[in-house]
Amino acid sequence: MIRIALDAMGGDFAPAEIVKGAVQASRELAAEIMLVGNPDQIGRELKKYKDKGKLPIVSASEVITMNDHPVQAVKSKKDASVNVAVALVKDGKADAVVSAGNTGALMAAALFKLGRLPGIERPAIATEFPLPSGKVLLLDMGANADCKPKHLEQFGVMGSLYAKHVMHIANPRVGLLNIGEEKEKGNELTRETWPLLKQAPINFIGNIESKEILQGNVDVIVCDGFTGNLILKFGESLGVSVFQMLKAELSRGILNKIGLAFLLPSLLRIRKKVTYDEYGGAPLLGIAGTVFKAHGRAKAAAIKNAIRESVEAVSSDMAAKLKENL
Amino acid sequence: MIRIALDAMGGDFAPAEIVKGAVQASRELAAEIMLVGNPDQIGRELKKYKDKGKLPIVSASEVITMNDHPVQAVKSKKDASVNVAVALVKDGKADAVVSAGNTGALMAAALFKLGRLPGIERPAIATEFPLPSGKVLLLDMGANADCKPKHLEQFGVMGSLYAKHVMHIANPRVGLLNIGEEKEKGNELTRETWPLLKQAPINFIGNIESKEILQGNVDVIVCDGFTGNLILKFGESLGVSVFQMLKAELSRGILNKIGLAFLLPSLLRIRKKVTYDEYGGAPLLGIAGTVFKAHGRAKAAAIKNAIRESVEAVSSDMAAKLKENL
Repeated sequence: MIRIALDAMGGDFAPAEIVKGAVQASRELAAEIMLVGNPDQIGRELKKYKDKGKLPIVSASEVITMNDHPVQAVKSKKDASVNVAVALVKDGKADAVVSAGNTGALMAAALFKLGRLPGIERPAIATEFPLPSGKVLLLDMGANADCKPKHLEQFGVMGSLYAKHVMHIANPRVGLLNIGEEKEKGNELTRETWPLLKQAPINFIGNIESKEILQGNVDVIVCDGFTGNLILKFGESLGVSVFQMLKAELSRGILNKIGLAFLLPSLLRIRKKVTYDEYGGAPLLGIAGTVFKAHGRAKAAAIKNAIRESVEAVSSDMAAKLKENL
Repeated sequence: MIRIALDAMGGDFAPAEIVKGAVQASRELAAEIMLVGNPDQIGRELKKYKDKGKLPIVSASEVITMNDHPVQAVKSKKDASVNVAVALVKDGKADAVVSAGNTGALMAAALFKLGRLPGIERPAIATEFPLPSGKVLLLDMGANADCKPKHLEQFGVMGSLYAKHVMHIANPRVGLLNIGEEKEKGNELTRETWPLLKQAPINFIGNIESKEILQGNVDVIVCDGFTGNLILKFGESLGVSVFQMLKAELSRGILNKIGLAFLLPSLLRIRKKVTYDEYGGAPLLGIAGTVFKAHGRAKAAAIKNAIRESVEAVSSDMAAKLKENL
């Protein structure tokens, strides 16, 4: 049985929504989900649910918050839930970690305890961005604000391997996020990265402009973490904004209200697509182990999806596949 | 009477939509709009409209396309419409230029013929990005892919002056686009820019994350041209995508079709907000003259709006105000 170490104390809605997500996952997945954190708080949450799978509690007395300095907090709060969860993987007691907490702290804990894959200088956070139809893997989503061309090259190779072995895309198309189609377009970083990706052992299809991100004609998009984080968070906020505008506009006047009644199921379906309520997790690629970051604002459904993805990554042997192909 | 030199041959829908936009503008604005380009083609388009204002044709025998190399084309095609239009401003025969053509060529022509304002090393393209309520000025939108901190500082000062004198915002709030709130967050460029903006003679409110762009609590957002171009084009495409998803979803099934009939006026109002059909123009700030770039895909309504904005910039004496305050 696959064993997942879940940081029950990390995220804006921890521990309540994290535990709820774990309970939901335990009903659907053949996995043992270890809840890492304050036993009293976790126990209280667990009591709310009857029908549930194997959910052992692993005690951790400290919590790293969103406001803590990642590296310092990981070093000083030895018994923080994220440290304990990652240690379970290091000690062979769990197969993967999932955390919705401080991203930098998760990365630091993973780097200190699990280390990097050979050949990788900078692990990256990869997000499966939802499209009107399908998904696209974007990396790096914020772990590395300043990148060199060789880092982006490594992101391209890791993203391609993840898309192939975990997302099951036969020959993943890899693109470089840029402000023009031609190879000489862009800034210094993208101009110097293009030839490196071109000669890498991947299906590099060239530059991808931001207006193409949602069109579904590329499987993996490579960028530095500054750009990726801006695009990801802007995309989330724009989806939410358009939906809010829609709701405000559509509840105005009696004719609209009648129309709205007919449309509600459709609108809820769209809402799912344009908001991050059900986003799953983002793998930390380049770490010598399976580590997933869930959204800081993740609620139960998103936590469940992140656990599901981590289980898939373990069953497809992601870490070993990356290691042997790098 | 304010005189606008309009590049009638620039843009994806030139000359038909450009001339149509000029005709519409001539009905609403007390301005003389000079149509620069091929006299036969422009004349044929003009004949389609009866009620129209003063629209003299200025002949230009060449056209710079979107695929031309900007600087080379501006140098080799001396009689290109964009060159002739900018020359009208240089020679005092027009007060401002508007072009929907090749952005780099417009910038090059403006730099060669009109030059830079004192103290400005790099002119920037500033876009008034439409929000659910109001607008926010973003710069640079793509003129400068690689920037130094001092360039971003200059963008902040120019953006603030434009917001004050043309957008009539009393004390414009200026923010730095970044991936975190605190001053030590971000990449090298933003971390080094923060203190420069802090001591600049503007109302600097600190870092702005991309999820805040649409929230209306900042008037001017500063970033490098690579980032700005990616954000702008992603925003356009995401708005369009959400609307397409909505249309597809809402025309599915008879109940939805009934609902849709009630909602059509509301949906069209939202469509206007999330697509760039009626975007106006983007000023080239830092050029010693008034130059506006309209969207490459601009149709008549957007051209009319760009002309209106260029007239406003001239009547508010934008170029002089920038010059005396830099």
